[in-house]
Amino acid sequence: MSLLVTGSIAIDTVQTPFGKAEGVLGGSASYFSYAASFFGPVRLVGAVGPDFPKEFLELLKSRDIDIKGLEIRPHSKTFRWGGSYTGNMNEAKTTDLQLNVLAEKPPRIPESFRDSEFVFLANTSPALQLDLLGQLDGPEMVVADTRDHWITESRDDFLGLLKKITGLVLNDFEAKILTGLDNMVAAGEAILKLGPRFVVIKKGEHGCLLFEGSNICALPAYPISKVKDPTGAGDCFAGGMMGYLAANKVVNFAALRRSIGFATVAASFAIEDFSLGGLQKIRLDDITARLEKFRALSSF
Amino acid sequence: MSLLVTGSIAIDTVQTPFGKAEGVLGGSASYFSYAASFFGPVRLVGAVGPDFPKEFLELLKSRDIDIKGLEIRPHSKTFRWGGSYTGNMNEAKTTDLQLNVLAEKPPRIPESFRDSEFVFLANTSPALQLDLLGQLDGPEMVVADTRDHWITESRDDFLGLLKKITGLVLNDFEAKILTGLDNMVAAGEAILKLGPRFVVIKKGEHGCLLFEGSNICALPAYPISKVKDPTGAGDCFAGGMMGYLAANKVVNFAALRRSIGFATVAASFAIEDFSLGGLQKIRLDDITARLEKFRALSSF
Repeated sequence: MSLLVTGSIAIDTVQTPFGKAEGVLGGSASYFSYAASFFGPVRLVGAVGPDFPKEFLELLKSRDIDIKGLEIRPHSKTFRWGGSYTGNMNEAKTTDLQLNVLAEKPPRIPESFRDSEFVFLANTSPALQLDLLGQLDGPEMVVADTRDHWITESRDDFLGLLKKITGLVLNDFEAKILTGLDNMVAAGEAILKLGPRFVVIKKGEHGCLLFEGSNICALPAYPISKVKDPTGAGDCFAGGMMGYLAANKVVNFAALRRSIGFATVAASFAIEDFSLGGLQKIRLDDITARLEKFRALSSF
Repeated sequence: MSLLVTGSIAIDTVQTPFGKAEGVLGGSASYFSYAASFFGPVRLVGAVGPDFPKEFLELLKSRDIDIKGLEIRPHSKTFRWGGSYTGNMNEAKTTDLQLNVLAEKPPRIPESFRDSEFVFLANTSPALQLDLLGQLDGPEMVVADTRDHWITESRDDFLGLLKKITGLVLNDFEAKILTGLDNMVAAGEAILKLGPRFVVIKKGEHGCLLFEGSNICALPAYPISKVKDPTGAGDCFAGGMMGYLAANKVVNFAALRRSIGFATVAASFAIEDFSLGGLQKIRLDDITARLEKFRALSSF
């Protein structure tokens, strides 16, 4: 089925205890679409400036990623982000932020993308997520990501969005901000009452929790002893999840739990190298092989 | 097989967001032995004073717990601990600490317990753990717990202990203190190099990691939306683990991973009520039923 992602495309500079990557491809839509493209075609909607390196365009085009929705604005500049990680690497310290094209009017969804059946709205203002959603012809499944900032600063819009989406993916800190609850099981159950059919709470190195109705699935993270760069892990998680679901077509609880298995594995490859390096080294076979390994090491 | 535990027996007063329990049974050896007794007999070594309530003694005796090693010292007083939990309840704030009998000479292991084959040395000074170990006739399997305090203040003794035990259970914070590593996968692998055949890193609500040779098992926690009192969860975890292993007799990796499944479930019942209340409500059938539920909700 057709899978669409709307989100940021960035030029990143990232410093971690394992090194520094300067001017590399980043952004939620880049990570998401690359991870999802292992499973099938992806439609990408975003905007960059003429400074966006040609090799990044080529990298996206080398995958099954349709960049018809990628606006290259002649008088703008690509979003740039710099971040550094220390300690447990759970959170980046932003060292550089140049919104550039992200501060302009948002990209439109091309006519030919409006029939997309699976949609991922990467983190941005909920008002914009709602606007993008409004441009689509009734997609079958819409999943949104968010950030603590939007939950606190645009709470009403965000609560409105929750009533219009199928699924929400967010991290444990965001789930706490949203619900006021410290217990993530209680938080997940509380979020379901706000509208979405399912919720995935991502806990980084501690895995994730999936909630749908009265069903819960709890998975650990895939154990990685050397996390080189956690940037984009959450977007690769979502990309693996949605890529699998769109390819699988059925979205029942059994499919959802398998999808977060694939999501976990996609993220585990992503964090093994800077930018998209970890994913560029692998093929779908590697993902399915690690999924089997994951299944074995998390069973008892 | 015979299973022995050495550890504290306490009178606790615990405050959590869900209420307060005053003067209830606590201590690592109490929690451990109760949890382990679902699987088979337990030999308990510890000391209390004449103030130790008779009903607590009866509670222990009502289980398959041999209290021949429980010294009731006429001129002493039972160890008392008070703690309060707030927020995510990951750590207690100690509000009262009366070492009493714990500040005196340690209890001896009775002659008739010295042939114990499975031994759990609950958290105390590593010098004392080594001393207790020395009183035993070459047990088959020795597992120790510890605390950050002992790792920092008695590091040499602790490193000596690590060379004499089969397995170490500790929490993620202690694993970080011990190894200096933030990544728990790397930390687990590093601890194996210090001596023990296997290591279990407990991560509370985030589950646990088991390391043995090049094998890893990663489990989430069993999802509990209402954690009433996390006191003793780690000791119930260890009790479930060792109780299963001693009953199972074989200690290969397959048995170890099953044992941490039982451990997780035992701990999940314990945190649903104050003191041993959560475990007093259940039978082995409830543990095995929840184990199956756990298996289902953590598979994908």
